[in-house]
Amino acid sequence: MAKQKVETEIFLRLRVMHGGSIIFGPGRADLLALIESHGSIAAAGRQMGMSYKRAWALVDSLNTSFASPLVEAVKGGAGGGGAKLTTLGAELLSAYRRLEQECADVSTGALAPMQAALAVSPEQKSG
Amino acid sequence: MAKQKVETEIFLRLRVMHGGSIIFGPGRADLLALIESHGSIAAAGRQMGMSYKRAWALVDSLNTSFASPLVEAVKGGAGGGGAKLTTLGAELLSAYRRLEQECADVSTGALAPMQAALAVSPEQKSG
Repeated sequence: MAKQKVETEIFLRLRVMHGGSIIFGPGRADLLALIESHGSIAAAGRQMGMSYKRAWALVDSLNTSFASPLVEAVKGGAGGGGAKLTTLGAELLSAYRRLEQECADVSTGALAPMQAALAVSPEQKSG
Repeated sequence: MAKQKVETEIFLRLRVMHGGSIIFGPGRADLLALIESHGSIAAAGRQMGMSYKRAWALVDSLNTSFASPLVEAVKGGAGGGGAKLTTLGAELLSAYRRLEQECADVSTGALAPMQAALAVSPEQKSG
């Protein structure tokens, strides 16, 4: 129900924590997906409105949080080299997407009271 | 398995989003729980190492995100007044805790590859 009210629907964002640090989350997942599709850290960051420095810092954080890197350099080629996901990078991105889906699936009931109690903005009241 | 490695276990933090804004999350939930136990926004914030201003800003954000407030003032009494959760506040805190539990329950499988791939710190290697 309420499928038509897409703009007002609440949703979950999941951060995977290790100690006090984020080791995976929605921004890192989107960046990895875009690195895979663009073949470039810079292009992926650009599409997310992120500085080159910020995109590299996130990749460095991902690469050092795990036992082996999630993103690796690709030497040569027409574009003079780029980046791609390692097997581990693809595996952990896939695990995170699965996690998002599984939590979304179970969260409907617990989110319902929040959804129902949302403040209605003036535009919505008049609409 | 690996139940003994408590310090190195990864875990989820859940943010409930509405549009581009956080409307509920771990910090807000802890603050609400402490307001309920301390009967004071200031005392709750203090216990979280939060400034009075920051605690009030979070309460204000919670109160205006929903159709009615989650925290209300308590007039008079020995302490000269304080704060407590409204029925809605208690209900949404409980819904959020349920959400955390339900996501934790389903996340074990999807988190396993991340847990397995964690970088091992030098201290852990030597231990």
